[in-house]
Amino acid sequence: MNLSYTAWGKFEAVRAEIPNNLRTLCKLSPARLLSFAGHSRGRRGHFARPCTVVAQRNFSSASTMTVDLDSSTGIAVMKLHSPPVNSLSLDFLTEIAISLEKLEMNKGCRGVVVTSALPKIFSAGLDILEMYGKSPERCGEFWRAVQEMWLKFYSSRLVTVAAINGSSPAGGCLLSMTCDYRIMADNPRYSIGLNETQLGIVAPFWFKDTMVNTVGHRTAEIALQLGLLYSPQDALKIGMVDELVPEEKLVSTATEAMARWFAIPDHARQITKSAMRKPTIDKLLSARETDISNFVSFITKDSIQKSLKLYLENLRKKKA
Amino acid sequence: MNLSYTAWGKFEAVRAEIPNNLRTLCKLSPARLLSFAGHSRGRRGHFARPCTVVAQRNFSSASTMTVDLDSSTGIAVMKLHSPPVNSLSLDFLTEIAISLEKLEMNKGCRGVVVTSALPKIFSAGLDILEMYGKSPERCGEFWRAVQEMWLKFYSSRLVTVAAINGSSPAGGCLLSMTCDYRIMADNPRYSIGLNETQLGIVAPFWFKDTMVNTVGHRTAEIALQLGLLYSPQDALKIGMVDELVPEEKLVSTATEAMARWFAIPDHARQITKSAMRKPTIDKLLSARETDISNFVSFITKDSIQKSLKLYLENLRKKKA
Amino acid sequence: MNLSYTAWGKFEAVRAEIPNNLRTLCKLSPARLLSFAGHSRGRRGHFARPCTVVAQRNFSSASTMTVDLDSSTGIAVMKLHSPPVNSLSLDFLTEIAISLEKLEMNKGCRGVVVTSALPKIFSAGLDILEMYGKSPERCGEFWRAVQEMWLKFYSSRLVTVAAINGSSPAGGCLLSMTCDYRIMADNPRYSIGLNETQLGIVAPFWFKDTMVNTVGHRTAEIALQLGLLYSPQDALKIGMVDELVPEEKLVSTATEAMARWFAIPDHARQITKSAMRKPTIDKLLSARETDISNFVSFITKDSIQKSLKLYLENLRKKKA
Repeated sequence: MNLSYTAWGKFEAVRAEIPNNLRTLCKLSPARLLSFAGHSRGRRGHFARPCTVVAQRNFSSASTMTVDLDSSTGIAVMKLHSPPVNSLSLDFLTEIAISLEKLEMNKGCRGVVVTSALPKIFSAGLDILEMYGKSPERCGEFWRAVQEMWLKFYSSRLVTVAAINGSSPAGGCLLSMTCDYRIMADNPRYSIGLNETQLGIVAPFWFKDTMVNTVGHRTAEIALQLGLLYSPQDALKIGMVDELVPEEKLVSTATEAMARWFAIPDHARQITKSAMRKPTIDKLLSARETDISNFVSFITKDSIQKSLKLYLENLRKKKA
Repeated sequence: MNLSYTAWGKFEAVRAEIPNNLRTLCKLSPARLLSFAGHSRGRRGHFARPCTVVAQRNFSSASTMTVDLDSSTGIAVMKLHSPPVNSLSLDFLTEIAISLEKLEMNKGCRGVVVTSALPKIFSAGLDILEMYGKSPERCGEFWRAVQEMWLKFYSSRLVTVAAINGSSPAGGCLLSMTCDYRIMADNPRYSIGLNETQLGIVAPFWFKDTMVNTVGHRTAEIALQLGLLYSPQDALKIGMVDELVPEEKLVSTATEAMARWFAIPDHARQITKSAMRKPTIDKLLSARETDISNFVSFITKDSIQKSLKLYLENLRKKKA
Repeated sequence: MNLSYTAWGKFEAVRAEIPNNLRTLCKLSPARLLSFAGHSRGRRGHFARPCTVVAQRNFSSASTMTVDLDSSTGIAVMKLHSPPVNSLSLDFLTEIAISLEKLEMNKGCRGVVVTSALPKIFSAGLDILEMYGKSPERCGEFWRAVQEMWLKFYSSRLVTVAAINGSSPAGGCLLSMTCDYRIMADNPRYSIGLNETQLGIVAPFWFKDTMVNTVGHRTAEIALQLGLLYSPQDALKIGMVDELVPEEKLVSTATEAMARWFAIPDHARQITKSAMRKPTIDKLLSARETDISNFVSFITKDSIQKSLKLYLENLRKKKA
């Protein structure tokens, strides 16, 4: 399903009328149904965790994520599952944004852990196929969805923790930087960073602003120009991630971190978060259309399309 | 005495006509009179230090601070003494601001060390009793005094050094962050930070701006949301304080630090300080009334009043 | 030659008609002619490096710099040579800015290493003789040239690497901070910093902005107020320089660093650089005339002129 942005408001209006638990539409696995059932047994049930499967929706042909809300803790876990590398396509971005929006509307949810269901990769970033050989209209639609994901996460009322269990270049790094807290698996094979310039493309100003807010002006300047990808250790050193743990402890550490955030009254934390981030968010909101047309005119240039073509061909050679 | 803000200008106008040395009104202790007398003996007098007691005033029933200016060095020491914990009430804030203003008008004064006369506490921050069960008018008056203290200190022509000899949460941390330099006693029992959210309240944008200017955006984001209180060692690590020393060396270290600042021609230092801080100051000045009404409408909310009530009850239980 | 700013545009217009290689006007040393000749032998010639001497011009009586462009690598090396200490006079500033502009117009050039041809000093900063006893008009002209140098370097399309092979106070520090990357000789006798206040003068807002962008707000606040000069080790610690190497490895390290920057497509790197720096540049551009008249009215004050006189006299005593 190719959900266009113009249809978004309408779509959500319809969704809003559907009771929350009915929205858990698609293909629940037996395990999932089990945990679903476990929900009613409360905190001491035999099942690992009392869980509501909020979403395991399916916009395209394959399931691209699971969102499990533990109603006893108020923590949802959003597991990205768009093989092979969680590339952020228009569909996937839309699904992510809608899933977050749904959690926001759920009063039982106070925080969300974002992680990957795929091995070795958190998210490979924006789907280059959405930028190569596409019409300007489609490119604009795609870019609006990238903006939307950023806007929703960066301003979320929820506590957002990224449990980065794999490499996280470009848009994957951006997604993690929108979160309140970042825990990364301490595996030197993984890397994270905004490496856009290495592909001959450019991180837009709000990627840049998010980066500056996270690691400071000078580190951002050098990292963005050189498109640097950092090892987990180096990412910790510059403040791009907040904590490193062995991969098997990622989710439990995320849950423990969440507890520290939950100790703070939500309204006070939310107003504070907004105070910190609103100027950056307002900057995009007031230049959103310009940003889209800038992106479209940049990405549809012959020279840029050639760069992307080259990059895609190299990718294919590597696979072959 | 409840000095209202509207009367402030008039009050100062009257004060301005009183010769400086006559303003050292109140209850001088014998020791103080001794040091006062010592002043005329010049730099080599037998008395520990040639001192002018600029202020040991008494707006309310008890003396809340001493301000001693060493005319041989140009350094004033402002010792906060509002038992039990130097809570910043409307009266106390007003006294602090007026004392600083007076030092600013004194050509013999180039710098001020702010410290506490009470054991274990620098300042417990804004007086919660000023925010609980008070009329909107009174709350507004209080908030204007908080703004005034911040404005005066953050823009002071004097070199301001905080000698933090005890814990310094919330408004206490803010006061120290307005200074040019912060030295803290290296006692792991002390802590410092803007912990407003832990009380269910929110640091306003100019607290936040001061914090960002001091420790950077990302550290401020996490510290403000979680209301983190740092040990002296951790405060040093994030740059919230500049130096740690054993408590008995605090004042001597502050004096030595002051010497480094005095080595710079005042006008060059002052213009530079203003260049660094003016944008932050102008931001509050241009939104001062809005900030007051935001505070008043927030703090007088039923839910916030309930939070404060709970907090005060817990405080009382602890004491009992 | 005293090239006034108003004549600049015309001067450049004339220059633009002269073929690039004819512009290598002046007094080529035999060694230089040799390397010049070596150019045509291509990458494997016997001569150390294939080089085009782009400029070894001579506005005043003595040669003040050499600019060698290695056409095989696209790297130019600009060696400042204005004895005794590379003071930035009006003439020297103008020459530096024009040399950079020329390299920018040269399609074969992708990056420039800025270094000193003098021992122990990178640049002593702005020439105080340009600020002492001069007419307001001349002061204004001088200041415009300082702005111009900063504007050209801070916004350069080229990769700019400062190879800081000596002390670099005030304007020397500013010049290095405009670069994309700073490598300093690890010699504890050298120092670097914006020490203007030590002379009783004040770094203007765009010096300050450059400093904040490089080392952050708090470090800049304290460094600028105290006019701190840092050892190479301390400069590395606060992020004022990016790397320290033994002095004999400075240029080779700069070349290696340049390679990392050249690995990125120029257009992507340039757009990213502009995104990072444009707000800071626009701030000066929109206040350029005000900044000039502020400088002129400040520097021509009696009190400031007295400070400068004192400083110059002390300098002369030291020499004698």
